[in-house]
Amino acid sequence: MENHEPFLREAIALSKSAMDRGDEPFGSVLVKDGEVILRAENSVFTGHDMTNHAEMNLVKSAAQHYDTDFLAGCTLYTSTEPCAMCSGAIYWSGIGRMVFACSETRLGEIAGIGLNVPSRAVLQTGARVVTVVGPTTLEDEAAEMHQEFWPKHLGKV
Amino acid sequence: MENHEPFLREAIALSKSAMDRGDEPFGSVLVKDGEVILRAENSVFTGHDMTNHAEMNLVKSAAQHYDTDFLAGCTLYTSTEPCAMCSGAIYWSGIGRMVFACSETRLGEIAGIGLNVPSRAVLQTGARVVTVVGPTTLEDEAAEMHQEFWPKHLGKV
Repeated sequence: MENHEPFLREAIALSKSAMDRGDEPFGSVLVKDGEVILRAENSVFTGHDMTNHAEMNLVKSAAQHYDTDFLAGCTLYTSTEPCAMCSGAIYWSGIGRMVFACSETRLGEIAGIGLNVPSRAVLQTGARVVTVVGPTTLEDEAAEMHQEFWPKHLGKV
Repeated sequence: MENHEPFLREAIALSKSAMDRGDEPFGSVLVKDGEVILRAENSVFTGHDMTNHAEMNLVKSAAQHYDTDFLAGCTLYTSTEPCAMCSGAIYWSGIGRMVFACSETRLGEIAGIGLNVPSRAVLQTGARVVTVVGPTTLEDEAAEMHQEFWPKHLGKV
């Protein structure tokens, strides 16, 4: 059986790296044939752009490196389920599969500031198939970053 | 009564400019206090990035020029209703209002390759209000670009 954990662990480590730098705790990696070929972190504050989500940054980088035919054979692993913007970006990019650890519902319970649109609700409306896997057994590990970040960020503690 | 037409006509003119250059026919402008302060066109082909939609390009540019408080007082005018990705980007950017000419439903009837998620379905789930206006009386004018572009682009004529 395919093991998603190493790639999700790397995405979660990138989410911690983003948080430690002062951005929001989200990280993503792009995988082709069992190898990580691109990495991205959220950079909304350090990059002065609230659309600099990890997945958006990854897709923008992927578009500069690879064509859509290549990307159809890639999997995007991400620490937390992509928002509507990032789900749309994954759709347009041509990336064939997306795997997430922490669900948007779980993130919403902790942060409560996002768009409440499940990634499948966006991706299933497209004219091409994007396979979606998640949430996974590492959901708690990914959620820990949010529990550490959001209450402080929103001034609730 | 507020007149949206001049700004929508400029967005539609930008959609023609994008098409004439070899990109997809979409254009957007950002308006503050009755003045156009930013313009953007679709550049998915010339920019080698399928996420380079007009609205996404506009939001990315806006983020580099203005903060979210300023953007709350701005209106994004766009030739065609934003997809789920661009609706999400508008949400995160802080832009206060979005006005479109041609609906996504109309675009879908002509092109049939998009994500079938109305912009309101994304924006109404957010924690802040983004006012949405559209489709408007200029829908036919905006749709003309799509009728010219998509059948040829998809090899149907």
